[in-house]
Parts: sequence; C-alpha cells; structure tokens
Amino acid sequence: MKRGIGSHQIGDPFEGFVLIKEASRGVTSTGKPFLTLILRDATGEIEAKLWDVTKEDEEVFVAEQIIRITGEINQFRGKPQMKITSIRPSQPTDGVHVSDFIEKAPVEREVLMEKLTEAIFEMKNPILQRIVRAFIKKYQEPLLTYPAASKNHHEYVSGLAHHIVSMIALAKEIHKLYPQVNKDLLYAGIILHDLGKLKELSGVVSTSYTMEGKLLGHIPMMVEEIGHMAKELQIEGEEVLILQHLVLSHHGIKEWGSPTPPLVREAELLHFIDLIDAKMNMLNRALDKVKPGEFTERLFAMDNRSFYKPSFEEEN
Amino acid sequence: MKRGIGSHQIGDPFEGFVLIKEASRGVTSTGKPFLTLILRDATGEIEAKLWDVTKEDEEVFVAEQIIRITGEINQFRGKPQMKITSIRPSQPTDGVHVSDFIEKAPVEREVLMEKLTEAIFEMKNPILQRIVRAFIKKYQEPLLTYPAASKNHHEYVSGLAHHIVSMIALAKEIHKLYPQVNKDLLYAGIILHDLGKLKELSGVVSTSYTMEGKLLGHIPMMVEEIGHMAKELQIEGEEVLILQHLVLSHHGIKEWGSPTPPLVREAELLHFIDLIDAKMNMLNRALDKVKPGEFTERLFAMDNRSFYKPSFEEEN
Amino acid sequence: MKRGIGSHQIGDPFEGFVLIKEASRGVTSTGKPFLTLILRDATGEIEAKLWDVTKEDEEVFVAEQIIRITGEINQFRGKPQMKITSIRPSQPTDGVHVSDFIEKAPVEREVLMEKLTEAIFEMKNPILQRIVRAFIKKYQEPLLTYPAASKNHHEYVSGLAHHIVSMIALAKEIHKLYPQVNKDLLYAGIILHDLGKLKELSGVVSTSYTMEGKLLGHIPMMVEEIGHMAKELQIEGEEVLILQHLVLSHHGIKEWGSPTPPLVREAELLHFIDLIDAKMNMLNRALDKVKPGEFTERLFAMDNRSFYKPSFEEEN
Amino acid sequence: MKRGIGSHQIGDPFEGFVLIKEASRGVTSTGKPFLTLILRDATGEIEAKLWDVTKEDEEVFVAEQIIRITGEINQFRGKPQMKITSIRPSQPTDGVHVSDFIEKAPVEREVLMEKLTEAIFEMKNPILQRIVRAFIKKYQEPLLTYPAASKNHHEYVSGLAHHIVSMIALAKEIHKLYPQVNKDLLYAGIILHDLGKLKELSGVVSTSYTMEGKLLGHIPMMVEEIGHMAKELQIEGEEVLILQHLVLSHHGIKEWGSPTPPLVREAELLHFIDLIDAKMNMLNRALDKVKPGEFTERLFAMDNRSFYKPSFEEEN
Amino acid sequence: MKRGIGSHQIGDPFEGFVLIKEASRGVTSTGKPFLTLILRDATGEIEAKLWDVTKEDEEVFVAEQIIRITGEINQFRGKPQMKITSIRPSQPTDGVHVSDFIEKAPVEREVLMEKLTEAIFEMKNPILQRIVRAFIKKYQEPLLTYPAASKNHHEYVSGLAHHIVSMIALAKEIHKLYPQVNKDLLYAGIILHDLGKLKELSGVVSTSYTMEGKLLGHIPMMVEEIGHMAKELQIEGEEVLILQHLVLSHHGIKEWGSPTPPLVREAELLHFIDLIDAKMNMLNRALDKVKPGEFTERLFAMDNRSFYKPSFEEEN
Amino acid sequence: MKRGIGSHQIGDPFEGFVLIKEASRGVTSTGKPFLTLILRDATGEIEAKLWDVTKEDEEVFVAEQIIRITGEINQFRGKPQMKITSIRPSQPTDGVHVSDFIEKAPVEREVLMEKLTEAIFEMKNPILQRIVRAFIKKYQEPLLTYPAASKNHHEYVSGLAHHIVSMIALAKEIHKLYPQVNKDLLYAGIILHDLGKLKELSGVVSTSYTMEGKLLGHIPMMVEEIGHMAKELQIEGEEVLILQHLVLSHHGIKEWGSPTPPLVREAELLHFIDLIDAKMNMLNRALDKVKPGEFTERLFAMDNRSFYKPSFEEEN
Repeated sequence: MKRGIGSHQIGDPFEGFVLIKEASRGVTSTGKPFLTLILRDATGEIEAKLWDVTKEDEEVFVAEQIIRITGEINQFRGKPQMKITSIRPSQPTDGVHVSDFIEKAPVEREVLMEKLTEAIFEMKNPILQRIVRAFIKKYQEPLLTYPAASKNHHEYVSGLAHHIVSMIALAKEIHKLYPQVNKDLLYAGIILHDLGKLKELSGVVSTSYTMEGKLLGHIPMMVEEIGHMAKELQIEGEEVLILQHLVLSHHGIKEWGSPTPPLVREAELLHFIDLIDAKMNMLNRALDKVKPGEFTERLFAMDNRSFYKPSFEEEN
Repeated sequence: MKRGIGSHQIGDPFEGFVLIKEASRGVTSTGKPFLTLILRDATGEIEAKLWDVTKEDEEVFVAEQIIRITGEINQFRGKPQMKITSIRPSQPTDGVHVSDFIEKAPVEREVLMEKLTEAIFEMKNPILQRIVRAFIKKYQEPLLTYPAASKNHHEYVSGLAHHIVSMIALAKEIHKLYPQVNKDLLYAGIILHDLGKLKELSGVVSTSYTMEGKLLGHIPMMVEEIGHMAKELQIEGEEVLILQHLVLSHHGIKEWGSPTPPLVREAELLHFIDLIDAKMNMLNRALDKVKPGEFTERLFAMDNRSFYKPSFEEEN
Repeated sequence: MKRGIGSHQIGDPFEGFVLIKEASRGVTSTGKPFLTLILRDATGEIEAKLWDVTKEDEEVFVAEQIIRITGEINQFRGKPQMKITSIRPSQPTDGVHVSDFIEKAPVEREVLMEKLTEAIFEMKNPILQRIVRAFIKKYQEPLLTYPAASKNHHEYVSGLAHHIVSMIALAKEIHKLYPQVNKDLLYAGIILHDLGKLKELSGVVSTSYTMEGKLLGHIPMMVEEIGHMAKELQIEGEEVLILQHLVLSHHGIKEWGSPTPPLVREAELLHFIDLIDAKMNMLNRALDKVKPGEFTERLFAMDNRSFYKPSFEEEN
Repeated sequence: MKRGIGSHQIGDPFEGFVLIKEASRGVTSTGKPFLTLILRDATGEIEAKLWDVTKEDEEVFVAEQIIRITGEINQFRGKPQMKITSIRPSQPTDGVHVSDFIEKAPVEREVLMEKLTEAIFEMKNPILQRIVRAFIKKYQEPLLTYPAASKNHHEYVSGLAHHIVSMIALAKEIHKLYPQVNKDLLYAGIILHDLGKLKELSGVVSTSYTMEGKLLGHIPMMVEEIGHMAKELQIEGEEVLILQHLVLSHHGIKEWGSPTPPLVREAELLHFIDLIDAKMNMLNRALDKVKPGEFTERLFAMDNRSFYKPSFEEEN
Repeated sequence: MKRGIGSHQIGDPFEGFVLIKEASRGVTSTGKPFLTLILRDATGEIEAKLWDVTKEDEEVFVAEQIIRITGEINQFRGKPQMKITSIRPSQPTDGVHVSDFIEKAPVEREVLMEKLTEAIFEMKNPILQRIVRAFIKKYQEPLLTYPAASKNHHEYVSGLAHHIVSMIALAKEIHKLYPQVNKDLLYAGIILHDLGKLKELSGVVSTSYTMEGKLLGHIPMMVEEIGHMAKELQIEGEEVLILQHLVLSHHGIKEWGSPTPPLVREAELLHFIDLIDAKMNMLNRALDKVKPGEFTERLFAMDNRSFYKPSFEEEN
Repeated sequence: MKRGIGSHQIGDPFEGFVLIKEASRGVTSTGKPFLTLILRDATGEIEAKLWDVTKEDEEVFVAEQIIRITGEINQFRGKPQMKITSIRPSQPTDGVHVSDFIEKAPVEREVLMEKLTEAIFEMKNPILQRIVRAFIKKYQEPLLTYPAASKNHHEYVSGLAHHIVSMIALAKEIHKLYPQVNKDLLYAGIILHDLGKLKELSGVVSTSYTMEGKLLGHIPMMVEEIGHMAKELQIEGEEVLILQHLVLSHHGIKEWGSPTPPLVREAELLHFIDLIDAKMNMLNRALDKVKPGEFTERLFAMDNRSFYKPSFEEEN
C-alpha cells in the first residue's frame, strides 16, 4: 500500500488494503443486486461498485470492515470510481488495523500534550490557569483524539489539539508584537474555545453531530460548562465571565454563530487567530496536492475559491 | 395632575409634579448657564429648558428628583418642549413618590403571580414543573418588578411578568387548536425564555444593560442557569436539554441572537408567541394614542412603520 | 391497499392500486426502451422503473392512469424506488377512482363549509360581511376543492378551506386575548387572503401555476378582484380599501411578495396567523412520520431545518 | 427677482417675492417667539428665521402665503439660511401667483400633450390603443399637472407627462435597434406605468402620500384600475393581462416594489427605460449646478453618490 | 445538415456532421467501456452516449474532431440525448471545417469593422480618439473574432464586436435625447469597456478563463492597459483618467466587480447601455426559440427567469 | 500645554496653544456674528464658539492658524465644547509650529525606514526585490509622512510606514509557523499594498480624497503602477502579475473593494495581516483612553462596537 487512494489517477491499477466507510445496496436494471462502497485509507477516499453480490457479500462487506482489493481507477460522471476486480475481507494475520486507515495530525500526540502543558505553565493569572488546567485534566483523552471539525479543516485524529497548539504559537508571537495583549487570557481562550466540540461531534471515525450538538451547538455548551467548572472549583472573579465571553464570541458575528461579537481585545484576536490557522490548514493541504502553475480544487469552506500555486514556487 | 405628559398638545399649559429623568448643564451664547431636563411621569416624557440657573439650582434639580412645575408646552425643532415658568422640588408633605411617575403593567402584580402559579399547577411533566417552580421561587421579586425590555415593548413595571402571562394565555388556546403541541414544554419555555433579562438589565427606573448583559446576553446566561439549576436539583433527563434549546432558539434566527434556530415544535411556537405578544403590545399602545383616520408615530421596533387606524374603528 | 406508499420501508413488498402521476420514456445502455413512472396514492409517492416496455405499454401506462402492481421497494441513489414485478391497468370492475389516490384534508368539506358560514354569520360589519359572502358564493366549489399551495403546506384536496378554517379558529382566540382587534376585519382578511390562488393554481391533481398566476400572482389578482366585487355590489367605504390592504400585505415583507408591509393592526395579525397555521401544518405532518428521539426529514419551506421529536413525547 | 433662491451663494443679499412652504413657531432662550419659515421659488428653497414675531405675524406668515422680503443669505450649521431684514405679505397689486413659485417641466404642457397623442396615434394594436386612449381621456388634466415623484426626479409641474414623453422617445429609438420589440405594448406600458401616482400623491404644491397611496401604493392601484377600465370598455384579450404585468413589474425586483419581476420582453425594457430617464433627469439637473472640475452634491436617490463633471466639459 | 441540433425535438431522427466538444470515458455496470460525447454545431449542443467502444474509438472520437453521425434524439433524465446508430470521423473530402460548427454574430465582421471605424471618425475629442484608434489598431484581429462572454450573451464568433456596435447605436440615439451627454466619451467607453476580455478569455472555440483573467479580471487589466497606452502615445489630460474610470465602473456596483461605482454621467450611461444590450441579446435569442403563448427556458444570467411570449405576438 | 485636548474632562479649565482645523461663520438669533472653530492638538480635537466676532477676528482666526487660548470645557448637546475666555494668534516668538499639533507615529521615521530597508534586504527573489526597491526609492518621502488612512487607523504622520512595518513583523513570525508561505512575496505585498494611498489621499494635515482617488481608488491605481514600474524596469515574469493580484485582492471581498478575492496563499495572508494590524491599532488606542472596568467609545470602523477593558487588567 505504498501509494494511497488520495494520490490515484484515472487509469491507475490499485492493489492493497482499504477501509469500508459506507456500504449501500442497489439493484441494476436487470434486477441484480450490487453494493456501492465508499473506501478510504489515511490519504483519501473513493467510490466503488461491487456487482452481482451474494447475500454473504452483503453481510461481509459492511462499514468499518477492512478489505483487500485489486482494481482499476476509472471515471464516472466526472468523478473517480474504483473498478474492483478482486476483493476479500482482511484477516487477523494481515496485521492491519482501523487506525491505519484514518488520517492523523502531522505532529505526535505526545508532542501536542507537551506544548499544551508548556502553555499552561506560562500562564500567571491563577484563576485562568486553574480553570484551563481542570479542563485539560477532564478531557485529556478525547482532546488528543478528536478532530477540530467534521470536515474542512483539521478533520483528522488529534486535529483539535493540533489546531490549539498552532493557535498558541501564533498567539505567542502576536503578543510580543502587541504587548498590551493579555497573554494569559488569550491562551485560556484558545485552549477552551472549541472544547465544546468534544460533545458536539460523535468521534473520529465517521464524524457526525450529536443530538445535543444540533440542538445547542458547541459554543453555548462550552459557555455553560465553564460556568459549571468555576462553580465546582469555587472560583469567582471577572475572569470567568470574560473567558465565557471569549468562547461565546469567537465566531465573530451572529451569522457565524456568535450571538455576541467580540467586545474584549483578546476576544477579537482569538477570532482572527482561529480564522488564520483554520484557513492556513485548508490552504496548505490543498496546495500540497497541486504543482506550481496549477489551481487547487474548489475549497468549499473558503467561499468555494480555487487557489493558484505560482509557477515560481518550488515543487514540494 | 389629571392629564399626564403623554397626552399634552402644543400650546397646552401644564401644572403638576414630574420626575427628573436626566439633567445636563449647558451655557448660552451670552455665557449664562442653563439646564436641559428630561421630565417624566407615568404617561410619557418631555424635554425642558431651565434658563439662568444658579449653582444651587444645579445641585437641586438632578436626576430622580421629583419637582413641581408650571409651564407651557411649546415646539422646538419639530418636537414638544416644556417652557417652565415656575419650579420647585417636591417636599415630604406633597405625598408623591418615585413609583408614581413610572408606568406600570395594566394588570396587578398579585394577579400576574396568581396566573403564573396556575400555569405551573397545570403542568404534568414533573421535571419541567420542578425546574420552573425553582426559578419562580428564586426570582419571584424581580420577576414581578422588571420590565420585559429596556424599550419598545412591555417596558414598564411588571412588564416581564405581564408579557409571560399574556404569552401563556396565547399558548393555552393554541394548544387547544393543535393538540399535538406539548403544553408543559411550551409553558416552561414561555416562563423561562426571558428570565435572563433579570441579569441583563439594570432594573426598572432607568433601565440599561449590565456589563454581564453586554458581554454574554440574556440568552446564553439563561441557558447556563438552567444547567446550574438542573444540577442543583439533581434533575436529569432530556427535558433539561430541550428546555435549554427553547430558550436558546427563541429569537428564531442567528441575526436576531439565537445561534441555533428552533428545531423542536414547541421552540418554533414559542418564537411566534413571543413575537405576537410583543408586537400587539407595541401596536395597541401606539394605536391608543391616535384617533380613527390617523396614523401612529413611527414604531422603531416594527421596522419603523407608521400604522393606520381605520376611520370605521370606534373612538376609545 | 391497507398500508400506503407513504409508509413503505426499504425491502417491503407492495401489492395494490396506485395512480400514475408522471410517465416518461428512456432507453437503456443496450438500447431497450423503459418507462420511469411516478406512482402515488393518498399517502405519498414513489418512483418506479418499468423495463423492456412494448409500444402498447407506452400507450397504456400514462399519467392519470390507475394501475394494479406487485413489486418490492428498493433503494436507488439513496432514495426509495419501486421494483415492479407485475403490472396491469385498473378495470371498471376494480371499483377504484382517481380521487381515492389523492390526499384530502383531515376535515370533511361539509364541516369546513359549515365553519366558514358560522364565521361569516358572526361578522357584524355589513360591508365586510357582504363582500365576503359574495366571494364565498362565487367560489364555493373550487374553494372547497383547491389546495392552499402547490407544495409545502395544506397541499391536499380542500387544503385552502382547511387552512382558512384553522386560521379563523386562531383568530377567534387571539381576538379574545387582545379585544382591541377588529374581529370582522380579521375574519374577512383570513377568508379572502388566498382566494387568488384559485386563479393562480391549475387545480388539485397535478398542481402547477397558470400563466396569469406567473405574470401577476395571487396577491395582486385578489386585490383587483376585491375592487371589482365592491363595484359590482355598489359598495363604498374605507372597508374595501383596508381589506385590499390586508390581502396585499399578508406576506409581510417585499421580499416575500407583499409590495406594502402591514400598516393596519389586523394586517399584522393576519400575517402571523397565516405563518403559524402554515408552519404547524408542515411541522405536525413531518413529526407524525417519525418516532420520539428522531429527527424529521429536512423541511424545505422551513429554511431546510430538520426537527427533533423529543424522546419524552408519546408515540402516536 | 432675476436670480432665484436656487442660485444663491453665502453672503448674497436677497430681495424679492417668495412662497412660504412651511411655517412653524419656536421660542428663544429668552422666551421670545419666532417663526421658522421654509421659503421657495421656482428655482429652489431655503430656511429662514423671523425673530420677535407678534401674534399678527404668526397669523399672516403661514404656508402657501406669498411674501416680499429683503435679507441676506448666511450659513447655519453648514446649510444656507436666509436672514430676513424686512418682510411683508404680497398684495393683489403685486401681480404674483402661487404658480410663479413652483418649478415646471422644461417643456410646455401643450407640447407634452401633443407628443402623447402622437404616440397613441402610432399604435396599431386596437386593444392597447383603446385602453391607453381611455386613460388619457380620464386623467388628462392631472396627468399634465402632476410631478412624477414627490422628490428626486421630475418633481415639478408636468413632471409625470415630461417623464412619459421622454421615455417614449427612448422607446422609439430602442425599438428601431431591436425590431422584435412590440412597440405598441411598450408605449402602452410607458404611458400607464406611473398613472397610479395620480392617486398615490396629493398634488403638486406640497406633494405628500395619500392614505390610499400608503396602504396600497401606485403599482397595485394601477393594476386594478386597468382591470376596471377593461371591464368598462368591455375589452377582453391577453393584452389586458400583459399590460397589467408591465405595470406590476416595472420596478424590476421585489425589494423595489414589484412583487413579480419582468417576465415579458417589453416589461424588462420598460423597467430599464424608466430607470434611465429618471437617472438622467436627476444627473443632468445636478450637473447643471456645478462647474467643470467640480463634484455635485450627494444624490440620495442615486445611492448617495456625488458625481464629477470633467474639466474638459464646456461650461453651460 | 439543414436542421441543426438546436432545433431538435424528442423523437426526431438526426443525420449529419457535428463537432465533438468534449469526450469522456465511462464503464457500464457490466464492465464495458463507453464514451459520453458533447456534440455541437452552429445551432446548439447535445449529449450523446457511444456504447461498447474500442481502444481505437477512444483515440478517434476526441474533442475538436468533426464526425458524421446518424441517430435519434431521445430523452434522458428530462434532457435530450442523442442515441447514435452510426458514426464516423469526417474526412478531408467531406469539405467541413471547425468554423462551420461554431455560432457567429448575425452581422458580418466587415460590417462590424466599418461601423466601428465610423464611430471613431465621428469623435471630435482628439485625446479620446487617439487612444481608441490605437487600441483598435492593436487588437483588430481578436476584437473581430472574440465572443463578448464565455456564456450567456454574445457568446459567439465576433460577439464582442457585435456587442460594441449595438451599444454604439444605442448611445447615438440616447445622446440625441439627452444632448448634455458627451458622445465622444461615451463612444470611447463603449469601445474599450470590454477589451480586457481579449486577455481574460482563452478564445472562441471552447472559451475558458486565462490564469491572468482569473487573478486580475478584465476590468483592472483594461484600466492598466489604458494607462500604458496613454504613456506610449505620450498623451496627458484628464480624459485618460476619466476613460479609466468608465472602464473601472461599468459593472455598476462592487458586488458585480466594479470597485468604484459610476461617478461621471457617461459612466452611468455606459453601465445601462451595456446592461440593455446584453439583456436584449439573451432575451431575443431565447424568445426566438419559443412560440407565442409559451415560456422560454430559464435564463440563468437573468435571475433564472423564464420569459413569456404573448400569444398576440406574430410567429417568426 | 502639558495635558492635551484629548485628555480633557467636562469642567476643566484650559490654557495653551492649539491649531484651528476648521472655522465657519454663523449669526445668532439677535443677529450677531460668531465663529465655530474646530481646535486640535496632537492629542485630539474639540469644538469651540467664539461669540461677538469682528471683521478682523474673522480674517485672523482661520484654518491652519495656531492660537493661544484660555477657556473652560463645557458640554453642549452631549458633546464637549470649549468656552473661550481669551484668544490670540500665535507669534513667531511663541516658538510653536503646525507639526507640533499633529499626531505622529509612536516610532521615529528613521527607525521605520531602517526596518523597511532590512525587510527588503531579507528578500531573495530578485524580481520582487527590484520592484519593491524601486517603489521605495520613488516614494520614500511621502511614504514616511503619509497616514495609512484619513481616519480610523494609523491616521497620523508616518502612519502608513508604521502600518507596513508592523505588518512585516507579523508576517515574519507567521512565516516561521507556516514555512510553506513565500516570505518574499508576502513582504512585497505588504510593502506595496497601500502605496496607492499616496495618490488617493491629499496629505497629512487635513486629509481628504483626491479626484483621482475618488474616481479610481488606491487599489486599481497601484495595480496599474506596478505594471508601469515593471515595464520601466523591463522586468518580466509571473511575479509581476502575482504581486498585482496581491494588491488587487487585499481587501478580501468585492463589497470591501477588491473585485477579485485572494486566490494565492500569500494574498489570503496579506488580507488577514492587514486586518489584524489595523484593528489592533484602533483597539489599543481606544483602550488606552479608558480605565479597567470601563467600556471604550464606540469604534465606527469596528462595526460600531464599544470594547470592555477587564477590571483585572493593570492601569497603564
């Protein structure tokens, strides 16, 4: 499995292990059942058709099953489609695991945790530090596993922690340039701003929204949870309210989900740092896939723009 | 003081007690100090100029002071202005109180409390009933005193309770017409939807926004408080979440301050019942001030529209 | 035909009579002709493919033909599709009629007519009453047959009358709570507001827009017709104009088709009552199809929202 | 009165007859009554203050009174203000009339009528011609007197007829360039499109909106009136409906007051011809007031833009 | 090839030469390769499927190849589709050329050039005339070949010149009606306004956007080029700046691509003349395809409207 | 002149030198002329009235005159107003200069120039470096003098250079965090992005828009000028186009004046870096004027928000 699905080209043969992400049954015009499979590995995903399936096939080739296939990559209605020529479920002796087929952050979780700990250690305001520390303790495991979003940016294992750690690096430098900025407050806002996603999203493998996530959303949930945490820790002080404000306002405007816009300097900055890191993550990954002189695919979360990689950039 | 300020007409003489709402100092072109006063009673307010004031005048005629004046109502730049001919501060023997000069709900607070109690008594879902009961107990006094808003609708003493009680009456009838509606949930949502205003607004006399109100807003504050209350009462169940959703979504769309739109039937209804009662309150009060065949003043909170009272309506 | 099309589930067999709503011819990759049929009964509709059709089949299986089929419900591209195993056109001896396959209001047309008559009888303003009575007389038959819209809400036989009667019930209660409201005017507005749809829409079976409906729309058409009716009845008085205003403004804002916004109290209320009844009709029907703890399908006319039915609601 | 008010400059003395457009009473800081007058002649208007007025002054110097004044043009809060040094009401022997002080179209009404008649004479479609002829006959007098709008464009005596005649000239040429255009239909649409303003506006001297105008607007009123006229003339045919569509859609989009957008070629053209003539009228009059190399005042009805007159344009 | 593709009807047989615009390979459910072809001639385009193709077929039937086919026009998913029964590539002896299959302006290029020359000859301002003349000289060949847009309006050979010449005709007449308009400036603006498209678009056959076109757009490119040209010609004077302003502002508002709105009379007119000619071009061509009493297809660039051709229009 | 105008409080006496920014003449109700003066120093500005002025006063106290006054700060209509008690024009012996009364960047121009030179020195791409160097040489003097905007942010002497230098510092750090970013391109974009303002704005003392600035705007002007410079330097290469794209797109969206949105990674970053530095400049200066626990005045260019300075921030 040297070259992954994400680097396929029309006409390429394919041989290797992949994970079934979704499987659904159809019937052809001549009445024969077939399966439509969405296959994925750590580099991307592709649709495949499995024709003339038996009852057993339908029971074996289901979501979250790892399979070994050989086939060829064709095009159907302008999109790539895998034509399967042979298929079998993986066996214990194959030595493959679900986690092998899911994209991960480019930084190890131990490193991410270390950087988070460092940032908290730098904080001097005891109220902010205590709250942040308590949250990290409470959510350490999911925080190091969850993606930052169900799609678009940092949508991979440890994506949320990766996003937070990148934002902290940005904040650190920006604080040096504008020393009036309260670094502790900004750090606390960055670390907590998206923790509500741990309840809003279902997990890492096939990320969807929870019922709670749909009815409340990660922003109000996290505002509430900061309140609970402060009560639990018997912490009082304007810091709690200001921290809630940072979380509440970090989407910037009402239309994007913040009922109150940023009204504190660090809230304004948090909004911009979040935007920049999310956009750079999307942009860099899309530009990595094209050569100098080419345009990327359209990026839905960036107003559907297609970006150009100047021909004077070096190949990567 | 039979006819109040609100029913004045240009050219009318005026004699009676009024409350100074605001007082600010100016200097004429000839260098003489004067006071600009905003005077109010329970029926309305008017601007007045007090010319050639002494240092003592400036100390006596300040905000929240009751005064007795005689004067005449003139017009200045298209707006009415009181020309004061005599003025004195009220004395204990005058028997007037600040509360005499502030508008009140047209229903007594005892009646409002009774109707609220009745509604809670009607509820059958024990979880919803317990939460609502706990809130009413906690906030009974301010709930019966606060306005529903700082301006526009129900902006008078007991305005919030008056708004809630009217909405319950509407809900009761709508439930009869659409029996699938969960009345308990709708009642609970109505009673709690604006309680966050008790923390968002500063009070009744000269209502402004608190710092907390500006940085968080009554909606996220109340969502959080429902969470705290449920914890305190050791209540669990989907009802808590759904109730939070009703409060969160009751402004209907993001642009109006609800980061999540209504996604539960009773949330959708709550939004409309809130709208109707607020609009009818504004409309009825504005139309009461004009005669059949006339247009009202422009109503800012109703898209600046000026409403027509048909000439076939009876005089009130 | 106990269980209708609307309550099918993937994998269910199906046997019974259905109406062909649309039929169109296609050719397979191997050059063989087939028919794509949209089948419907009073509970819903489904797509079906009829393979290897003869010239005779193409002539027999056309829109508005009732057929008897046996088949199985499959899934194709994520949507249900009927796989037909046997098919024949209905015969006179089958005793089935087109009207059996079209959804109807949940209230009988006699009852709807009775309620309308009652409402008119309650009216005291002779001008408003005469105009309304004349319209009901003129349009009685189509009014009791037409849907209230071509899709989204009350899109069934007698839907318009059902919508009007529900709105009157709402108006009656709202008038009690806000007695300043002119009930006669509100009733007249409710009864006439959508009568223009009788000219805007083509009918009940496969509802589309008429040329007149596209070029003028039901609102301006009805405003004009009120004018004609008043002339015919030799009625004069501000009531005619105000009634035209209620019809003209009942969509609330320009963007939704009312060139003038509501500027009379009853016009404002008419707009809200119309909204509430349309939304409750959509919501209740969508929620009836799901179980507690589930979300409905997305409702296009409600901003594409998917609504949640709380798990503490009883099964219906 | 050689130079009118419209061509004043700060510091200029002024002597002559003007019309009082509005008069309102005020009281100075020292308690003395004064009058604020809006004075106008055919070239423009200006505010003036009349200090220390007597009861008699207040009765004499009222709206629609012609006066003779001498004074000087000063500046107050950035706007010109007339400082009156002497004033007297006009007398019969002065030989001045209200009509002398109101702006008129630059084309005589007889000429306008002639051009209208010519256009109707050119029409070949008998249905369209009969309807247009009937309207011209019915409204000849006000049509030749009314402005096309209460402000912004063609807001002078005969403004509406001037606007129509200019639009016909444009239509004539455009028809030559795009011969597929139905000239009769376009002419009929142009002549009738704004006739509803004869009921929407109060008249010429101090133009305001009528009650009917506010509650319905000139567009729906005219659509209705075309329907009445067709009935009266016992005319039937698609032309009536299409003509109503042209009037209904001539503002182009919902947000500008047309509930239906243009859906017929001539409706689309009518919208653009209306726009161009209105804009050229505003622009030409504003540019006439400035010299080459200068910017005009901001034009509210043209998105508040200030237009530049290139320095290579000749002085006019 | 008497009747072209654009006038096909479902069920019609077809025989003749067409151009392959696009060709893409697919695989059927039974694993057999097929080609999806987009075929075009000067009257329109249609999709076709070529089943069971060989490797040779795939190499022969590629974009820009002319082919001779016989077939039948069917319907697939509501859109016409050519069913090919025989196919062969064209041969030199067939005497067909790519240019035969591309739509052309209805006016010959010599006539267009003559009209352009005439317009320039009419100009009196030497600065404007010199600049325009220089551009025409520089771009004569592509100007007479390019379309005015990649789709929607004047999207055919010589479309840009046709658009310019029509606009000049409009400008000439409008200038007569509003003689204050500077005809030279307006002519210059019309001729240059879209010349940037010669760099923004790739050409005539399968028009797409160039990289430069995507990153800068034709408006800023042309503003810059006017600057270069003026330098080259050593021309100075406000005319250069004003001409740049006309080009820059001709889309009217920021949302449509003009960062500065029209602030000169002729800029405002240029915008409207451009709009009218583009819209009439789209409308006339769409209406030509339908009969009186019918609606056109939806026109994407005209807000997706479907226009009605009145039944009293003559057949063309 | 220890405490400047910007730190005044109502009731404070004032004594010192100030610059007259604007002077306009008025006449009191009693016919006496007076002057309204806008006075400024390096810390802020205030309105003042000078009563009973002579002809000589009117000639002496004009814009750009330095004066010495004593007075008192009062309040008029809610805004501070200086009451002048004595006034005299400055004399050569006073040793005051216009530049003393204008705000300056907090960094010396020599330092700014040095930082700019350093940044250019860091660049490795010879094309980008040569263009930037040529511009800095051409515009060195105005670049070190001009403000970055006529109001809102960096609206002081050397404001533009200060803005550029801050942005470069941000870019340097961001490049370290996202090493894929092309630093040379980003630096070049930052240095050139607003140079068009040197032609768009009139200067530093009372900054207004030039005619060219109004008709073209700084963005298209600078895009053009980069083209001219490249020609002059005989530079070719995609770098020129990409640099033009960075300037063209740096306002991010059409509504904010960029007809093309950022389509290159560094263009996207340039937009955000520009936003952050402008906003931090506004925010920091507004927050500097208030104490912990207070809100700032409303900031027009930040959506009219009023920001809160948390009470746990230290006093500065």
